[in-house]
Amino acid sequence: MDNDAHSCVLCKAIGLQNESFVAHWEPFPVGIGHMKIIPRRHDAEFYAFTGKEKEDFFELFERIKHYLDTSLGKNKPDGYNVGINIGEAAGQTIKHLHIHVIPRYTGDVENPRGGVRNLKPAKVSW
Amino acid sequence: MDNDAHSCVLCKAIGLQNESFVAHWEPFPVGIGHMKIIPRRHDAEFYAFTGKEKEDFFELFERIKHYLDTSLGKNKPDGYNVGINIGEAAGQTIKHLHIHVIPRYTGDVENPRGGVRNLKPAKVSW
Repeated sequence: MDNDAHSCVLCKAIGLQNESFVAHWEPFPVGIGHMKIIPRRHDAEFYAFTGKEKEDFFELFERIKHYLDTSLGKNKPDGYNVGINIGEAAGQTIKHLHIHVIPRYTGDVENPRGGVRNLKPAKVSW
Repeated sequence: MDNDAHSCVLCKAIGLQNESFVAHWEPFPVGIGHMKIIPRRHDAEFYAFTGKEKEDFFELFERIKHYLDTSLGKNKPDGYNVGINIGEAAGQTIKHLHIHVIPRYTGDVENPRGGVRNLKPAKVSW
């Protein structure tokens, strides 16, 4: 077991937040490492971020990708889908914006063409 | 969709932290609603909390239980297991204390006697 706070996966995970966003593990993951980026501002919209939010979104997204790339041990992702549902017609069920970051693994679906469009229905209840 | 920040499940979820602890969804959940309480202090031990940590642990634990009791819709828990693995001999794999809070549902195992001891092997990789 690694007892160095600097390399600790839990220390890193609880640090995945900034002034505008918080990252959480998805409670209903469609696969290993599925996270959600959640704006602190309840009524934030992906098409109407403030300048600071735009900057903070990419700051946190880069850290999340690095975290997932380096912290999942043998489950290092081979790729990623990013999924955002805007509006009920698009499948948004919680009226608070959240950006799904979904690690993908070679062979997790029969044919990965189509990307996020191709996730199995059972995997897209969000 | 509920657009009231006060009752928003994501606002509540990202607010599940205090000065000493952060709550995260478990990335490898053994069931619906499985959360982890993580001390901010990397070398905190369950048997050696500071006075403030003891107070903050129960403050956050009560809020988590209330959150899970009221935010999982049709998946309202029927009971809870709390699980803590202290030391490698006890199955601790990440050297940063974390307290599992596991909602339980009537019928999720054939016979609930034994509680946390009775979770299926497949459910206790943590």
